[in-house]
Amino acid sequence: MVDNLGIDFLSELVGTALLVLLGCGVVANVALVRTKGFNGGFLMVNIGWGLAVFAGVIVAYASGAHLNPAVTLGLVANGATEFGSAATPVDVNFLSVIVYIGGQLIGAIIGAVLVWLAYKQHFDEEPEPANKLGVFSTGPAIRSYGWNLVTEIIGTFVLVFVVIAFGGGRQGDGGLAALGALPVALLVIGIGASLGGPTGYAINPARDLGPRLAHAFLPIKGKGTSDWSYSWVPVVGPIIGGLLAGWSALLLLPILT
Amino acid sequence: MVDNLGIDFLSELVGTALLVLLGCGVVANVALVRTKGFNGGFLMVNIGWGLAVFAGVIVAYASGAHLNPAVTLGLVANGATEFGSAATPVDVNFLSVIVYIGGQLIGAIIGAVLVWLAYKQHFDEEPEPANKLGVFSTGPAIRSYGWNLVTEIIGTFVLVFVVIAFGGGRQGDGGLAALGALPVALLVIGIGASLGGPTGYAINPARDLGPRLAHAFLPIKGKGTSDWSYSWVPVVGPIIGGLLAGWSALLLLPILT
Amino acid sequence: MVDNLGIDFLSELVGTALLVLLGCGVVANVALVRTKGFNGGFLMVNIGWGLAVFAGVIVAYASGAHLNPAVTLGLVANGATEFGSAATPVDVNFLSVIVYIGGQLIGAIIGAVLVWLAYKQHFDEEPEPANKLGVFSTGPAIRSYGWNLVTEIIGTFVLVFVVIAFGGGRQGDGGLAALGALPVALLVIGIGASLGGPTGYAINPARDLGPRLAHAFLPIKGKGTSDWSYSWVPVVGPIIGGLLAGWSALLLLPILT
Amino acid sequence: MVDNLGIDFLSELVGTALLVLLGCGVVANVALVRTKGFNGGFLMVNIGWGLAVFAGVIVAYASGAHLNPAVTLGLVANGATEFGSAATPVDVNFLSVIVYIGGQLIGAIIGAVLVWLAYKQHFDEEPEPANKLGVFSTGPAIRSYGWNLVTEIIGTFVLVFVVIAFGGGRQGDGGLAALGALPVALLVIGIGASLGGPTGYAINPARDLGPRLAHAFLPIKGKGTSDWSYSWVPVVGPIIGGLLAGWSALLLLPILT
Repeated sequence: MVDNLGIDFLSELVGTALLVLLGCGVVANVALVRTKGFNGGFLMVNIGWGLAVFAGVIVAYASGAHLNPAVTLGLVANGATEFGSAATPVDVNFLSVIVYIGGQLIGAIIGAVLVWLAYKQHFDEEPEPANKLGVFSTGPAIRSYGWNLVTEIIGTFVLVFVVIAFGGGRQGDGGLAALGALPVALLVIGIGASLGGPTGYAINPARDLGPRLAHAFLPIKGKGTSDWSYSWVPVVGPIIGGLLAGWSALLLLPILT
Repeated sequence: MVDNLGIDFLSELVGTALLVLLGCGVVANVALVRTKGFNGGFLMVNIGWGLAVFAGVIVAYASGAHLNPAVTLGLVANGATEFGSAATPVDVNFLSVIVYIGGQLIGAIIGAVLVWLAYKQHFDEEPEPANKLGVFSTGPAIRSYGWNLVTEIIGTFVLVFVVIAFGGGRQGDGGLAALGALPVALLVIGIGASLGGPTGYAINPARDLGPRLAHAFLPIKGKGTSDWSYSWVPVVGPIIGGLLAGWSALLLLPILT
Repeated sequence: MVDNLGIDFLSELVGTALLVLLGCGVVANVALVRTKGFNGGFLMVNIGWGLAVFAGVIVAYASGAHLNPAVTLGLVANGATEFGSAATPVDVNFLSVIVYIGGQLIGAIIGAVLVWLAYKQHFDEEPEPANKLGVFSTGPAIRSYGWNLVTEIIGTFVLVFVVIAFGGGRQGDGGLAALGALPVALLVIGIGASLGGPTGYAINPARDLGPRLAHAFLPIKGKGTSDWSYSWVPVVGPIIGGLLAGWSALLLLPILT
Repeated sequence: MVDNLGIDFLSELVGTALLVLLGCGVVANVALVRTKGFNGGFLMVNIGWGLAVFAGVIVAYASGAHLNPAVTLGLVANGATEFGSAATPVDVNFLSVIVYIGGQLIGAIIGAVLVWLAYKQHFDEEPEPANKLGVFSTGPAIRSYGWNLVTEIIGTFVLVFVVIAFGGGRQGDGGLAALGALPVALLVIGIGASLGGPTGYAINPARDLGPRLAHAFLPIKGKGTSDWSYSWVPVVGPIIGGLLAGWSALLLLPILT
């Protein structure tokens, strides 16, 4: 028998694993050599990531389907007092925040391992180490930590602000799944298409850091660096963007209710 | 404490800012050099703009999510007596129309500035001034003010006429958001794909004029002209189209109710 | 004051005009020289046509949004006794069927004229007459009247059969709009992508014949033949397909209810 | 008069025939020579297959729209005690499972024959035998039975696990159609885009084996081998994936309810 916090942990873990499996999967399909979707285009990546969010949200109903530390922290900044579904509520406190983020990070690592297994032969045959890392984690089109950070902050701000608006700005309601997975999926397709150009839209610290860890420890044939020097940008940027969105949504509560 | 008109102003401002941030963002991603979505195709631009509308409508629930002077004026022509949501109604009069359009225009300028920040390095590295302007404002494929105007009138007519039909032709109900953001998003994708070929479908004076103003005053590296000689077409065309749609919808009320 | 049949006529006319304006519009955008969507790909055409159906169905609520003689005749074959919405019902008889089909055909002609106006300069500059006709009407990839007919029959069968299934196979209910425009739009995108390869999926006699008539009488610069020798295929094929679907749906009523 | 099991058999047959007609149809459009959608890209294939599922689910309401032996077996593993809709329930037992799978297989064969008819001339003109087989059945990008099996297992696991989650993990409810066809369609688009790269995502034994049988017996001009040596992978992989998903969903019931 597990308590609500255990259920919510499992829910975030399973949901984020599915998110990363399908999300990093579409990048593998488009980027790795000899796949059927090779060179399928950026829109296909956007749609694949959006539907990855869709599937992840569906299975993570119990925990409210954050699947993203920036969402969790944004909801905290917005004044949420409870996470999870009505059946499995938990109080918002240091422990539950850590448990949510822990589930997300572990889930992301598991999802990345599954992508590697599903595309094993294509990783083996891919000659370019940067393409292998690109399946796992984001990287900037033009490296400049400051501006890359700005892009990630703006992208994550849009994600968390609109996600809070889906819920009508209601404080204390940390659950998104009940509102339907489709709007979030469409939103992520839109953010990817519109704001993904400069940095590949991590907009989720777990989605970037988890797979990067997997890239570092997995025995991937001919892999190169895990680019740790950039790794803080898709963690810090989304956290800042999420917090700003949570606070802004509080401030703009009258228009969001 | 702000009154209803103040809330609706803020709502139009925030919604239009988000609309233009994501909408002009997808053009930046497709058009500017070295982005990840470079050359992503016209369908990706259509989908990006459609989902920009989706996100903008979600956050502008309070004001009824016009986000477009042609929609505001079309609703006036259709005989609307109230704007805004049930919680924040305002009478339709000269003042409220100006406040709505003002919020839209200021929001559009803010959205354009955010696009410039998100794609700052790509604007800096882009060698072609016309591509930079193209992120902000529309321009004709074949310049001919008369025919360009015809295209914009037809496109905006479709937008406003169908948007009024979503509400079942009910007069006095200026609120669209309650009907769901998805249908409007799909409509805008369709108009873009089908009628965007000749002029890039402004179909919204604020969406074109706001970013053009931003283009004019922002210190964009190596920018060229803001093409003011064309600028009246995507303002006048949508206004005519919106008014015609509002009156036509009145006339065709029996089939739309 | 118009009676119900007059309202339904107007409704079919307006809905089909919008259907053809957006539907033939996306072909113009993809096929005509110097448009912004030039060479946008077959998927963009599919999506454009699907959203054209979406918009057309929205505004033709009053008449049940057939917008297609194959749908009208398929519903007759399925045993419908009433057309139109609850507010504007008409009995199914020879007169009402003719009125529906007449509204569809006239609407399609109007829609085609509007496409020509919206893309006027691109028609003028397009050097290839076949591309101009292709905006208005369908043509076979490999000409063979028998096999082209088979393809149109299969495509229209799928359209009408599934459309009837949306309504749960209920006889006597000729209204589709109430069930939502989105499912029909998705269906048409799917039929286009999957069965549009050989003949360009007319699957609607009005959609093909109306614009072909417009092509014949409009003063299009440098236009060629209207290809009347093929014109019966996209009329007869969809009618056969629609009737077969209506009868099949009757036969399979137990699984569709 | 047919009993419930007969209705459910017919429902699975008709639904799977439509699924395969539209699903294999989009591959024909993209892969066969001289079609209008030639070279339309992998995303178009994904969307076509997703909408094929959409249409198939719509018409197979009576049986709960499994359309896939992996779904049927996954629901059994999940502990379902009844299949079909509320109006046509059947007990889950050896007979009903065989009847469901039989309907799916026969439907898939019929669908494949219809694709051949719709694209008859393009099959005749296509010079490459492998492209003809590719319309009917999947094949690996890089042949390696073990890894191909892993990919199919993972893909089908995602399909069946999320499909069960749509139903909130409720045991004994074998009906999916009531929950709406759109989520399943979106899920299949996502799986295709994300996990279809290595093997072309059969994720459905009937979808692969039925058309392969059709390929073997149809008098297709210039056809080559039906590649029976690979044929067990897209049968065994999805069955394993489906069973694992059913059991996992049972295990994770607390987070899925």
